[in-house]
Amino acid sequence: MEIVSEISCFDGTQGVYRHKSQCCGCNMTFGLFLPGEAKNRSVPILWYLSGLTCTHENAMTKSGIQIWAAKHNVAVAFPDTSPRGSDVPDNGDYDLGQGAGFYLNATQQPWSEHFQMYDYIAEELPSLVFENFAANKNAQGITGHSMGGHGALTIAMKRPSQYQTLSAISPIANPMASDWGQKQFAAYLGSNESNWRDYDASQLMVKRGFHRSILVDYGQDDEFLQLLRPQSLFSGVNGQIPAMTFRVHEGHGHSYFFVMSVIKDHVEHHATTLNSN
Amino acid sequence: MEIVSEISCFDGTQGVYRHKSQCCGCNMTFGLFLPGEAKNRSVPILWYLSGLTCTHENAMTKSGIQIWAAKHNVAVAFPDTSPRGSDVPDNGDYDLGQGAGFYLNATQQPWSEHFQMYDYIAEELPSLVFENFAANKNAQGITGHSMGGHGALTIAMKRPSQYQTLSAISPIANPMASDWGQKQFAAYLGSNESNWRDYDASQLMVKRGFHRSILVDYGQDDEFLQLLRPQSLFSGVNGQIPAMTFRVHEGHGHSYFFVMSVIKDHVEHHATTLNSN
Repeated sequence: MEIVSEISCFDGTQGVYRHKSQCCGCNMTFGLFLPGEAKNRSVPILWYLSGLTCTHENAMTKSGIQIWAAKHNVAVAFPDTSPRGSDVPDNGDYDLGQGAGFYLNATQQPWSEHFQMYDYIAEELPSLVFENFAANKNAQGITGHSMGGHGALTIAMKRPSQYQTLSAISPIANPMASDWGQKQFAAYLGSNESNWRDYDASQLMVKRGFHRSILVDYGQDDEFLQLLRPQSLFSGVNGQIPAMTFRVHEGHGHSYFFVMSVIKDHVEHHATTLNSN
Repeated sequence: MEIVSEISCFDGTQGVYRHKSQCCGCNMTFGLFLPGEAKNRSVPILWYLSGLTCTHENAMTKSGIQIWAAKHNVAVAFPDTSPRGSDVPDNGDYDLGQGAGFYLNATQQPWSEHFQMYDYIAEELPSLVFENFAANKNAQGITGHSMGGHGALTIAMKRPSQYQTLSAISPIANPMASDWGQKQFAAYLGSNESNWRDYDASQLMVKRGFHRSILVDYGQDDEFLQLLRPQSLFSGVNGQIPAMTFRVHEGHGHSYFFVMSVIKDHVEHHATTLNSN
């Protein structure tokens, strides 16, 4: 693992690191904020998954999340959204290929060799981070924005023992029924839709749910609501409903101006539980 | 209007009053909590609508709402849930007739003469209260529990200029598709379902929405979720979603132990806006 940069942020450190990923078969870059308290002990860690077209950098520079992570002594990891590089397949579209990994393990050509983002986020990167930094693997939360919200919801619902806390900002809630999902799942997973269900938050909400209340936020003026399908999170079996706080905010859109506006509540949602472990 | 009882509660007064209702063609009883501040000025008022089988008394004695209303200088009105008396039609079932007015104006025999609860709650009782008490008619909020949550949502969405704020606890969200609704709407409104839509919160959420963010709470272990149909609040046109905070609370049921657990947040939801007018 190589240090790309490290610089003070509040009383902690904002770092960027690069490593050779086995899962993805390429070099991967990630950001990591460590609060000052990590000099004394292993701190809880919040995984922040980004949206389409993003790299490790967007949330790190635009969300303001370090303000609250520093206050609550929580580390924040900012992974990339896909494998990268000239050896990695791509597609002219912004929503398929590099920058659009959809946090799944691809099974189809030409994607399957590199696009193993589910394993990368849930297995390989945590191992690397816990080996090299003062983060506590027994106090992990996960969140994300848009495609990253989809990633957070689907990964955490399948791995409840790994993640104590879960939230999502403007998540793609039902990719199986959306143009943000059908195209990508067909390409990465093939045409058999029964293989898609394990990567659809609305399907998993019915099938698995989560063991602790989830925080989910949307902007009412989000220009992508039709693709995000927030209502699908509630389309499960009549008579059941997931424990959650689901908020729709007047006047807010899909951008980092919205993420910035609600990120304090998300950090506190995670920190309250993770710090009490 | 007759004073049934008045007694101190915090630095204010918890009263119970009886009056001859023109709308309902019978005597009606209601509770009213006035905070101490009402001795100095007209205070905002929160209308609390109760659920099936309730009278004016249930929330007044079991919700703890006065604790927070006193703190935030808000009056709370506790209307009855239907017309009452030996001259008023009834039905052996708990969910039709007396105690089950569903906050609508009945058009069918034998109900239509007395069951005019929509007009009673939205018109007649407010007139009486504003004439006799130091409540500010320009600062009205409305909330309710179960059938009363249905009442609050449907009345406020049709009268946005009257109600500045809106919330609901465990509301019947989609009576047109529920045994808590179909039976009653057929009896009170007749078999033509197009006359039901104006009394269905999920229909109104699509058609009208509300002008300010709504707070809605459910208990995840509510034994009536199948009748309440919370998911229907989100079943509107794809690409639109109402501004709201929608919370599902682990371990909570449908009773006043749940109402008591969230009523502080509801009073504060209303008071924050009503007190800033």
